Amino acid sequence: MSLFELDGRLSRDSALITKLGLCEVRLSGDSRWPWLILVPRRTGLEELFDLTPLDQSVITFEINAVAEALKKATGATKINVGALGNIVRQLHVHVIARFEGDANWPNPVWGFGEARSWDEAEKRQLIAKVLEAL
Amino acid sequence: MSLFELDGRLSRDSALITKLGLCEVRLSGDSRWPWLILVPRRTGLEELFDLTPLDQSVITFEINAVAEALKKATGATKINVGALGNIVRQLHVHVIARFEGDANWPNPVWGFGEARSWDEAEKRQLIAKVLEAL
Repeated sequence: MSLFELDGRLSRDSALITKLGLCEVRLSGDSRWPWLILVPRRTGLEELFDLTPLDQSVITFEINAVAEALKKATGATKINVGALGNIVRQLHVHVIARFEGDANWPNPVWGFGEARSWDEAEKRQLIAKVLEAL
Repeated sequence: MSLFELDGRLSRDSALITKLGLCEVRLSGDSRWPWLILVPRRTGLEELFDLTPLDQSVITFEINAVAEALKKATGATKINVGALGNIVRQLHVHVIARFEGDANWPNPVWGFGEARSWDEAEKRQLIAKVLEAL
């Protein structure tokens, strides 16, 4: 069994906030949207259907728990969930809080404009709220 | 129990190709990408976590079955799965076949450029291949 290793770009562009049964939950370094990323701690996966049936059930539970917590923590208009992987192939799932009038609303966040880094106090506050809601 | 009714925009922009246990499977009218849309036949849902736990398991199974069939039918480089709903609020899940160099690669398909309608023969051929792979 090979050890889980996080993709270098995911590691650089996001920060670990907690670990669930299957996934790392990470916060994107781009502060334009409250943006979480779930990464299953498994090796060699690119597509959701590469997960075992049991892991598919677990990730569904974890995605929904994180999405609900993020909505509660932020009061978002809509949660966007996506597994794209066109650039970073290691399986990861985005869970993003969207608000009417936010950057690129109502279009997607991926590939839009330039990232804006976090104010440290705001980042700590968001993480605390999400963890509390989880 | 209120009857399932499909959102007008989803109805206009996509065509039913089959029904699974929970979801309608629809083909997007935009031929730039092989693009399927799953719509749970339930009322009043906006977020994935609005589904009951049982329906969450079922939709996971259906998303993964459709995604795997679409990859097999098209030979796609990557499948993109997304539940956004910023414009159409009725819960629906996109399952899209992506290829290196396709329109807007490696960025997302949503909100990009102008839709291109299907050639009828190509549309029929794709639907047949997807249904066979399912």
